[in-house]
Amino acid sequence: MASLRFVFLFLLISFSASAQKDYKLWLQYNAVSNSALALEYKNNLKGIVVFGNSETIKIAQKELQTGFQDMLGTIPEIKSEIKGENNLIIGSQSNLNVEIKNELKSDFDKISTEGFIIKSFSFKSKKQIIITGKNDVAVLYGVFNFLRILQTNKSVKNLNIADSPKTNIRILNHWDNLDRTVERGYAGFSLWNWQKLPDFIDQRYLDYARANASIGINGTVLTNVNANALILTPQYLEKVEALANVFRPYGIKVYLTARFSAPIEIGNLKTADPKDTQVINWWKNKAAEIYKRIPDFGGFLVKANSEGQPGPQNYGRDHVDGANMLADAVAPFGGVIMWRAFVYSEHDANDRAKQAYAEFQPYDGKFKENVIVQVKNGAIDFQPREPFHPLFGAMPKTPLMMEFQITQEYLGFSTHLVFLPKLFQEVLESDTYQQGKGSTVAKVIDGTLYQNKLTGIAGVANIGNDLNWTGHPFAQANWYGFGRLAWNPYLDSETIADEWLKSTFSNDENFIKPVKNMMIESREAVVNYMTPLGLHHIMDTGHHYGPGPWVSNLSRPEWNPTYYHKADKNGIGFDRSKTGTNATAQYAPEVERLFDNLETCPEQDLLWFHHVSWDYKLKNGQTLWNGLALKYQEGVNQVNEMQNVWKKTEKYVDSVRFHEVEMLLEIQYKEAKWWRDACLLYFQQFSGKELPTGVEKPTQTLDYFKSLKFPFAPGNG
Amino acid sequence: MASLRFVFLFLLISFSASAQKDYKLWLQYNAVSNSALALEYKNNLKGIVVFGNSETIKIAQKELQTGFQDMLGTIPEIKSEIKGENNLIIGSQSNLNVEIKNELKSDFDKISTEGFIIKSFSFKSKKQIIITGKNDVAVLYGVFNFLRILQTNKSVKNLNIADSPKTNIRILNHWDNLDRTVERGYAGFSLWNWQKLPDFIDQRYLDYARANASIGINGTVLTNVNANALILTPQYLEKVEALANVFRPYGIKVYLTARFSAPIEIGNLKTADPKDTQVINWWKNKAAEIYKRIPDFGGFLVKANSEGQPGPQNYGRDHVDGANMLADAVAPFGGVIMWRAFVYSEHDANDRAKQAYAEFQPYDGKFKENVIVQVKNGAIDFQPREPFHPLFGAMPKTPLMMEFQITQEYLGFSTHLVFLPKLFQEVLESDTYQQGKGSTVAKVIDGTLYQNKLTGIAGVANIGNDLNWTGHPFAQANWYGFGRLAWNPYLDSETIADEWLKSTFSNDENFIKPVKNMMIESREAVVNYMTPLGLHHIMDTGHHYGPGPWVSNLSRPEWNPTYYHKADKNGIGFDRSKTGTNATAQYAPEVERLFDNLETCPEQDLLWFHHVSWDYKLKNGQTLWNGLALKYQEGVNQVNEMQNVWKKTEKYVDSVRFHEVEMLLEIQYKEAKWWRDACLLYFQQFSGKELPTGVEKPTQTLDYFKSLKFPFAPGNG
Repeated sequence: MASLRFVFLFLLISFSASAQKDYKLWLQYNAVSNSALALEYKNNLKGIVVFGNSETIKIAQKELQTGFQDMLGTIPEIKSEIKGENNLIIGSQSNLNVEIKNELKSDFDKISTEGFIIKSFSFKSKKQIIITGKNDVAVLYGVFNFLRILQTNKSVKNLNIADSPKTNIRILNHWDNLDRTVERGYAGFSLWNWQKLPDFIDQRYLDYARANASIGINGTVLTNVNANALILTPQYLEKVEALANVFRPYGIKVYLTARFSAPIEIGNLKTADPKDTQVINWWKNKAAEIYKRIPDFGGFLVKANSEGQPGPQNYGRDHVDGANMLADAVAPFGGVIMWRAFVYSEHDANDRAKQAYAEFQPYDGKFKENVIVQVKNGAIDFQPREPFHPLFGAMPKTPLMMEFQITQEYLGFSTHLVFLPKLFQEVLESDTYQQGKGSTVAKVIDGTLYQNKLTGIAGVANIGNDLNWTGHPFAQANWYGFGRLAWNPYLDSETIADEWLKSTFSNDENFIKPVKNMMIESREAVVNYMTPLGLHHIMDTGHHYGPGPWVSNLSRPEWNPTYYHKADKNGIGFDRSKTGTNATAQYAPEVERLFDNLETCPEQDLLWFHHVSWDYKLKNGQTLWNGLALKYQEGVNQVNEMQNVWKKTEKYVDSVRFHEVEMLLEIQYKEAKWWRDACLLYFQQFSGKELPTGVEKPTQTLDYFKSLKFPFAPGNG
Repeated sequence: MASLRFVFLFLLISFSASAQKDYKLWLQYNAVSNSALALEYKNNLKGIVVFGNSETIKIAQKELQTGFQDMLGTIPEIKSEIKGENNLIIGSQSNLNVEIKNELKSDFDKISTEGFIIKSFSFKSKKQIIITGKNDVAVLYGVFNFLRILQTNKSVKNLNIADSPKTNIRILNHWDNLDRTVERGYAGFSLWNWQKLPDFIDQRYLDYARANASIGINGTVLTNVNANALILTPQYLEKVEALANVFRPYGIKVYLTARFSAPIEIGNLKTADPKDTQVINWWKNKAAEIYKRIPDFGGFLVKANSEGQPGPQNYGRDHVDGANMLADAVAPFGGVIMWRAFVYSEHDANDRAKQAYAEFQPYDGKFKENVIVQVKNGAIDFQPREPFHPLFGAMPKTPLMMEFQITQEYLGFSTHLVFLPKLFQEVLESDTYQQGKGSTVAKVIDGTLYQNKLTGIAGVANIGNDLNWTGHPFAQANWYGFGRLAWNPYLDSETIADEWLKSTFSNDENFIKPVKNMMIESREAVVNYMTPLGLHHIMDTGHHYGPGPWVSNLSRPEWNPTYYHKADKNGIGFDRSKTGTNATAQYAPEVERLFDNLETCPEQDLLWFHHVSWDYKLKNGQTLWNGLALKYQEGVNQVNEMQNVWKKTEKYVDSVRFHEVEMLLEIQYKEAKWWRDACLLYFQQFSGKELPTGVEKPTQTLDYFKSLKFPFAPGNG
């Protein structure tokens, strides 16, 4: 390896000696190389006419200037009024002149408050393009979407787009601690430099806001769900206020996590009982204090009575009591409470997968209207693959918010290339059958299944202070894809990959086609080399880095991988069917039947729902043991194929990013083999069978793999 | 403040939306705006002829190409042989052809192994410029120095430079922990991404090496002096090896900190006694293991029996025993041991300032020849001002290495603009009188006073993973200045400021003159608003952020600010004269007399050496109390003046850096007032006197200042 790394040295030294391109994310604004298209753009963009002068509109105008300068090499003339033809007009509805407003009346009827219109139209018989919406932030969204048309080399000749986000709250959850460590963060440390705030505004805060606005994200929770009450003290609120001021013109609201015991820790009260008058008043006053500083403060995200966090149950109250008390505090100011359903009892080791449903489903209809329950996509914890969470569709009178994890806690940290929109899409397309066929998770989330007014999608951020933001250049696609799916949960992940690749690297089809395919395949690859056929949570403990199926010594049973795979001489898998924990009964009957029956259960979820004998015949005729081993090998092969694809892209990609990805794929390949070998050697102890033909022999012993320790693995708590 | 910050928003949004310039440090290579000069450069640089093909030479060639492209807009033709005139020839002595070698014979006699020659000369009657040295790294140094000539807009017409570094070891000490926190780090977190090493080579490692090579730094200690033994395990040594491979072509050797108890912690031994055979062998084997991976490994830096670190005294041995045992282990491979003299006993609270001298001076002559004793510039701990350490000059038979602190632990973190080369120069120019007048610290350090072969200067790095490397754009100047002074401890800090400003910002004299002056003044400003007249170590405890003269409750007496200022009704200051602790007796008689006598003691060191009554008359006729108060005020005024200077530079500086510095100066001004008010209110309790005319009244009470808490201040441990 040493010599290989040495060879890289020279390739890596770019003339500018900087990682500039990495930093620019999907806003590269590469020069349009197709000259016919560049001409079309220039001909259709002779001038820019701006209505309005808010901070937001100025940002929109500058963004257009930046984009045109970089993509077309020229900035259209900025005009103070509409003169001549082929101008680009931007401005929100109320700032437009009456003629245009009338002309676009029916278009405005099609969009929501945050929606935008991009339209070619005639004004006084002259052809123009307009970008508008009901407020300036909507115009900004339109501007970024218009620039994306150029970035993806589409025509601007006959535009007629009216697009509105399908969810209200499109939000990043930063699990960032006040000491700038990031729980489950693999891209450096927290962006928030609390020490220098409020008086020093890091350029990066602006670039962060801009990137989020470009994909329609409109909220950010600055602090870890494992919360520290100090963030609610004036010393820190002043800093939060400064960030809110930076983010506001980009349409991004700030939210905080509320530590339930804050009234004790920073309020000098003796209790945090949500029924206690002093506690109720403390939170009301705290909310008023926050809203005085930040009038558009979004609200609180709360992890309560989960994994050691304090909550209403400490006082004999329940989640409804806790959530509603906080909801009352923020309601006068329009705030919301995002209350997490990620709970599992330390006193019930029967089946962790059942507990969130068991606890929360009975609360349906009991929450105040500004409470939204935030549910992880699956019932365990952000695994490479999980069946959709049974709560989706099961609480018709309660708004449910999706919680995806963008940071790759269980999917190879920031060293593995895994395109997550493929995973997100699989969840969103899952049919809950709760209102009959077609009751997809997406319809629960966007509120159309039960006509919820409050809707949202949260993503646990993969953003840190690495130069490239996300540690892995391709992990930028997961941030991008999350934002796009939060805007429209029905988007296809292939479309997202296509947009992202073109905006980030190149429009050359010789590059796009194979690399897009590589991205799409990447999610199945990680499932195969980590947890095929429904296996889950067999990562090493604590840091979750690498395989640890042998771990069985942790204090709580459900923290041990052995709890999840239950491998023994008879077979492997967690029986959640009616012969087991009956977790399947938490789904609608159609889904329950599907999962419960070994014959109909999708093989991708087999060991999630069933304990299956080593000799069980899979649909392809292989035994379970052979099939499992071959899946592990397939995952390794897929990564090797990803390497082959990437190697051919050198001429389309700048040298820094090319080599970054090349090195990371090499690590991924090494680690995929580690996963395969460690898991198969371990499970082989129970199956007692040889590896089938086609599976490479491990080069190390099981004891070797068990001996590996990673005391400083990042993101651990 | 909120509204002010808001106004910044737009100014901050640069079109490239990046902090690119910040990242480029002093290697901006701005286009030469003086057209006559640009023409001169082009006329004298028609071609580049390269002798040699090592990695280092390739780096040198690329650097020239980058520099010429950016500064002149063109890259001279790369020629395979010397044809025509006005070529730039680069290559090391052994790779040059015989004629040139002969031509330069007397020049080569002038330089050391690491020295370089830049010379205009005639070759076959044609004018050429040559950059050469005795090896390729020396050539690289020459290349960076040649580029600096262009960066600072000097003529290249008649060059005749032969320059060699005056010290052997020019090294950064990174107090970086394996979890990437940085002790006393204020610029983000550690650059070393141990998780992704060895297989992922961050572009930043290359940029770091390049920046260091450009100023002649040739070593880096990767890990904290408060060491973790795990760095010496194969798992980590593989990662260290990868970094060594990256740094090698840039002439930078890697060093590690050795935890003295490592044989117990990772070697399974029962003792770390340096006289124990097993321990001796363990370290010999460990050294062999390291050198097998890294043949040019530099050696170990050791903090032993200091502030809780293990050491030879744990086993009844002394520092000589410990250092020599390690020295024997690395000697066969050419390694060195840098043994720190920063020790103070927990059992002797008499005068911490005396202890390093008392302990180490008697060891003079007892260390092995590959041991160098690393001494902090002053006897306490990196204060804004300290008299030079009495060990300098007092150990004629022992090589002493300077330890400066570039990171601003006690000087305002990375929010205060303080140009440290001014401080460094003051120390280096101090006369120890140990060999009569002119026995400056610089002569101790460069080995000329006692003819030491082994010499060195260490700087505790201020580098982190912030986009701009050092947190404050002007803190880059301290990294730069450290490197330049390590190369030549006799350089004037004004020259350094001039070079740095021109390479980093602009050659415009309207910019250079006032800003250089601001930099030069900045060190005295921080002394004035923090610790004037010889006060020291009155920072708040633990994190050392902000004033804490009242702190008196820590377990060890010498950790309390009250220990250092000793303010009472009678006066203030630490009596280290012969009426006190007699620390002055550790200096040569001439210096001892100077410091011991209240009349001759420089007022800048007054309260360092004397306890002085509040009514004592200063040289300017003011009472001590009034003079002290006015010094605090003067410090505040100086910062205010720095703000005024900076405000006028807007047209010379890019918007991002301009506003960064503007915001940081605003914080510095706020904190200077905090220092003034908190200290004066506190000391006023003892003096019982009113503030003199000209000193602004505090706007807060002493209790308010005492109540301030900073639980997440960075860099704390």
